[in-house]
Amino acid sequence: MAYPRVLSDLINSFKRLPGIGEKSAERLALSILDFSEDEVNNFANSLVDSRKNLHKCEVCGHITDKDKCDICLDESRDHNVICVLEDYKSVFAFEKAGNYNGVYHVLNGLISPIDGVNPEDINLASLVSRVKELDHPEIIIALKSTIEGETTTLYLKKIFEGKDVEISRLSYGIPMGTEIDYLDEITLDRALSDRKKIS
Amino acid sequence: MAYPRVLSDLINSFKRLPGIGEKSAERLALSILDFSEDEVNNFANSLVDSRKNLHKCEVCGHITDKDKCDICLDESRDHNVICVLEDYKSVFAFEKAGNYNGVYHVLNGLISPIDGVNPEDINLASLVSRVKELDHPEIIIALKSTIEGETTTLYLKKIFEGKDVEISRLSYGIPMGTEIDYLDEITLDRALSDRKKIS
Repeated sequence: MAYPRVLSDLINSFKRLPGIGEKSAERLALSILDFSEDEVNNFANSLVDSRKNLHKCEVCGHITDKDKCDICLDESRDHNVICVLEDYKSVFAFEKAGNYNGVYHVLNGLISPIDGVNPEDINLASLVSRVKELDHPEIIIALKSTIEGETTTLYLKKIFEGKDVEISRLSYGIPMGTEIDYLDEITLDRALSDRKKIS
Repeated sequence: MAYPRVLSDLINSFKRLPGIGEKSAERLALSILDFSEDEVNNFANSLVDSRKNLHKCEVCGHITDKDKCDICLDESRDHNVICVLEDYKSVFAFEKAGNYNGVYHVLNGLISPIDGVNPEDINLASLVSRVKELDHPEIIIALKSTIEGETTTLYLKKIFEGKDVEISRLSYGIPMGTEIDYLDEITLDRALSDRKKIS
């Protein structure tokens, strides 16, 4: 292909993004030529700045451009309720849903002995010390229902068992708006055994 | 949403790309955090460089990072055959198809009196002077079949009429691999009236 060198470099960069194939990368790269110079500079700067300035919140492990993230700094939130998540993407998902007013703890991974990921490899120790300083805290575990997620959930349960900590996990069941006949068997089984009385 | 400022800037930049909505922009922006620092720098540099270094070829109007584009510089191509296109994106489409060995002329627009685009507003004058210097050249018009495309085609025909120029346009008809019953009526009509004898 007769793309000028600088353009094929740009296409290659776009191709590294998730879900962007050859065709889309070409389309996106060519669209940059219609941007104003300011727009392109802003784009390039926010790319570099995002990578450079974002790091983990020293309290909860969520990404932030400060020492502590906005959620940990927010006095109006209930700091006695901690939702434990696998990654920062889940934090954004919760914040979008918008009904949760506690704080978070981002593990940045899940326990997976088969991959050599042990409890000390993920952001767990700081959760234990956070919880120690709270008075009858509540921990909500919101990890995915894979072997790694379940292992991590069980491990967390074991750590806090017998301590003055209320611990729960998200409910499993039918996603809202889903046709029952399209559901996989495991979810359906789970929804059946976790059925709730209609009062 | 509680995105750090620098991240929401990046999301906004991604949102300006064609076909990228809110959700995709967030996903793409978050994926940047998994890039290495070198990758991000390369990405940012090729963005800025593409916008800065690419300009129009002084011969044909195609984009290039030199004075003349690679196609115009290529001695092995037939410079007596000029394919007239609306934009540089069409050049890349032709080059991908890979069977055309002539050169191009990019109009960077189409005549559209209703939008105030007159013949002198598009890259036409330089086509006329290019053609003048050639010996019995062939011009292939490859413009889309809209009012603007047809107007421009007719205008080109009028300019070169009576001169020593062979002029043709791409054939209209059924796209390869398309089901006949899904075709729009105008294309079907055109394919019917342009039918070719089977010899």
